[in-house]
Amino acid sequence: MSPAPIALVTRLDAAADEAWLATLSKALAGENVVPLRAIEPELRAAVEIAIVADPDPADLAGLMGLRWVHSLWAGVERLVAELGADAPPIVRLVDPELARTMAEAALAWTYYLQRDMPAYAAQQRRGVWRPLDYRPPFHVTVALLGLGALGRAAAARLGDAGFVVRGWSRSPKALAGVETFSGEAGLDECLAGADIVICLVPLTPDTRGLMNAERFSSMKPGAALVNFARGPIVVVDDLLAALDQGRLSHAVLDVFDVEPLPASSPLWSHDRVTVLPHVSGPTDRDSAAAIVAANVRAYRQTGAVPAVVDRVRGY
Amino acid sequence: MSPAPIALVTRLDAAADEAWLATLSKALAGENVVPLRAIEPELRAAVEIAIVADPDPADLAGLMGLRWVHSLWAGVERLVAELGADAPPIVRLVDPELARTMAEAALAWTYYLQRDMPAYAAQQRRGVWRPLDYRPPFHVTVALLGLGALGRAAAARLGDAGFVVRGWSRSPKALAGVETFSGEAGLDECLAGADIVICLVPLTPDTRGLMNAERFSSMKPGAALVNFARGPIVVVDDLLAALDQGRLSHAVLDVFDVEPLPASSPLWSHDRVTVLPHVSGPTDRDSAAAIVAANVRAYRQTGAVPAVVDRVRGY
Ligand SMILES: NC(=O)c1ccc[n+]([C@@H]2O[C@H](COP(=O)([O-])OP(=O)(O)OC[C@H]3O[C@@H](n4cnc5c(N)ncnc54)[C@H](OP(=O)(O)O)[C@@H]3O)[C@@H](O)[C@H]2O)c1
Ligand SMILES: NC(=O)c1ccc[n+]([C@@H]2O[C@H](COP(=O)([O-])OP(=O)(O)OC[C@H]3O[C@@H](n4cnc5c(N)ncnc54)[C@H](OP(=O)(O)O)[C@@H]3O)[C@@H](O)[C@H]2O)c1
Repeated sequence: MSPAPIALVTRLDAAADEAWLATLSKALAGENVVPLRAIEPELRAAVEIAIVADPDPADLAGLMGLRWVHSLWAGVERLVAELGADAPPIVRLVDPELARTMAEAALAWTYYLQRDMPAYAAQQRRGVWRPLDYRPPFHVTVALLGLGALGRAAAARLGDAGFVVRGWSRSPKALAGVETFSGEAGLDECLAGADIVICLVPLTPDTRGLMNAERFSSMKPGAALVNFARGPIVVVDDLLAALDQGRLSHAVLDVFDVEPLPASSPLWSHDRVTVLPHVSGPTDRDSAAAIVAANVRAYRQTGAVPAVVDRVRGY
Repeated sequence: MSPAPIALVTRLDAAADEAWLATLSKALAGENVVPLRAIEPELRAAVEIAIVADPDPADLAGLMGLRWVHSLWAGVERLVAELGADAPPIVRLVDPELARTMAEAALAWTYYLQRDMPAYAAQQRRGVWRPLDYRPPFHVTVALLGLGALGRAAAARLGDAGFVVRGWSRSPKALAGVETFSGEAGLDECLAGADIVICLVPLTPDTRGLMNAERFSSMKPGAALVNFARGPIVVVDDLLAALDQGRLSHAVLDVFDVEPLPASSPLWSHDRVTVLPHVSGPTDRDSAAAIVAANVRAYRQTGAVPAVVDRVRGY
């Protein structure tokens, strides 16, 4: 008897849905991956596994036999919030290729700031020829907020490039070549010495609004902020004030409270803000599908659900 | 008897002159480094070594006992042209720290292009939220024109970052991980497959005007050009035409025919051109002075002039 179908549950557009279905079906040969709408109501109770990307919670609630849910995304704050405490375990995407692209983004935009690309662009617009002092990487300290799958990969990459690297996490960590700090008490100390601060913490009740006026005033005058994690971690009004006062020199923002960033946002036209449309760590479908497939296969063999998100911590 | 003074001969501003004098004097303890104007005319004939940065040729011609000249710069095309065939041998700066900063620049501005930073900046100006397709480095080919001290360091750095690297030089070369091409005949082949082309050849009679309309038409449609070498290697009118026709997607220019780039240049306001004020490979005074000192010490011990520039090749 072939196993019950695996439900693909998303609110993506049709093209993205199609692409995921094709890639997952190939990676999960022998399994039957089916969009939820294509599963007859009377067969839904047999579904044990759902693969999800921004699912409608009601859709998942209709799957009575659901054992676990595999997110196609690394950040699962919305799932955790929407599914509630009784929902089945959530497995999130932990993909080395995602860690590679995110570490690359951390290095690329660190160079963007270290090599003064925003300042040279502003000079070019005004027709100004003025070499700025070069800061070698061993004189530039980069702080990574979050030392998980992505933060650790970024730390290693930046260290290899010669930057002075520090990192902050919830629980204490020892990482070769990285000065580490932990817990609420460690954050200001970590921020104080950094020229560039890169957010790679998940969005949880503890990290919502983390980077606010108080934090900005703990940062080194003239430091820059990069947010590659989630919009609500940064308090935008406080950030704009810190930029306008010249306390912070620049912000590179890839994530926002509302995405796409609304046309009315003052971030679009602020000359110390670089707006990116959520592109720092794009998902590679093939690589993600291979990870999902490995998790599904392990479950089929052992019956044990893979490592899951801690709903209380929120990540 | 203390050795004759070493003449510092430059046309830099007073502050830069002072800074070089202090740094060189410290690195060359035991030697007597003196600005040319401070050496009595009757003592000038005893000077064997001149350390130069953009020197007035007449100043050097006045040093009758000159055995060799040490340039503080890596690029010596002007010295070669101005000093003529009878002038003493020229030693140029070959500094691993310069190679490091230039390799870093090659990687930083390669990321700038690979990560579509110019396109995202243009979208931000228009308030457009549109993720562009991500190109992983293993799908991006970078061609280095010039595989000398700087080009080789850049090739290694780009290869470590996962880019596909090719290189072009006058004489054939074998370099691990780099597909190499050589001689005039090899250039078009090298260009044809590259997404990003980075110039790191010296300016010589052979490389003047090298990157012209014909070369641009050999390049992959949509490829980008980076010039970190010398302005006259690129024919600006041909480049502008190639950009306007959309044959090339972008140019990052750090060097120009005339520097500072004149206000009248159309490069300043072209939206497919990034203008940098000659900052890709800044000289580190301490590091450069240490290299000069080592060359001077070797000469004092052996009497042999260090490796010199080939005046016929021009580099
Ligand atoms: N922009 C994009 O394209 C993009 C793409 C993918 C992911 N992301 C974002 O990146 C986030 C991080 O991903 P990941 O895979 O690295 O997550 P992860 O492996 O779960 O790591 C999270 C890290 O943050 C730390 N952390 C969590 N809460 C904290 C708190 N209250 N105080 C201090 N540190 C805290 C954790 O500390 P411990 O080590 O002590 O647990 C851990 O080091 C995701 O949640 C997602 O939002 C963005
Ligand atoms: N923008 C800046 O801030 C900055 C800073 C420093 C230097 N530079 C420029 O960078 C240039 C390169 O420096 P470098 O130290 O790497 O020089 P280098 O060690 O002399 O190397 C020059 C390379 O170019 C190749 N080459 C020369 N003429 C060629 C030709 N006609 N056809 C093909 N290849 C040719 C050489 O080939 P072979 O290996 O066969 O000899 C060699 O690989 C300098 O000359 C200077 O103009 C710019």
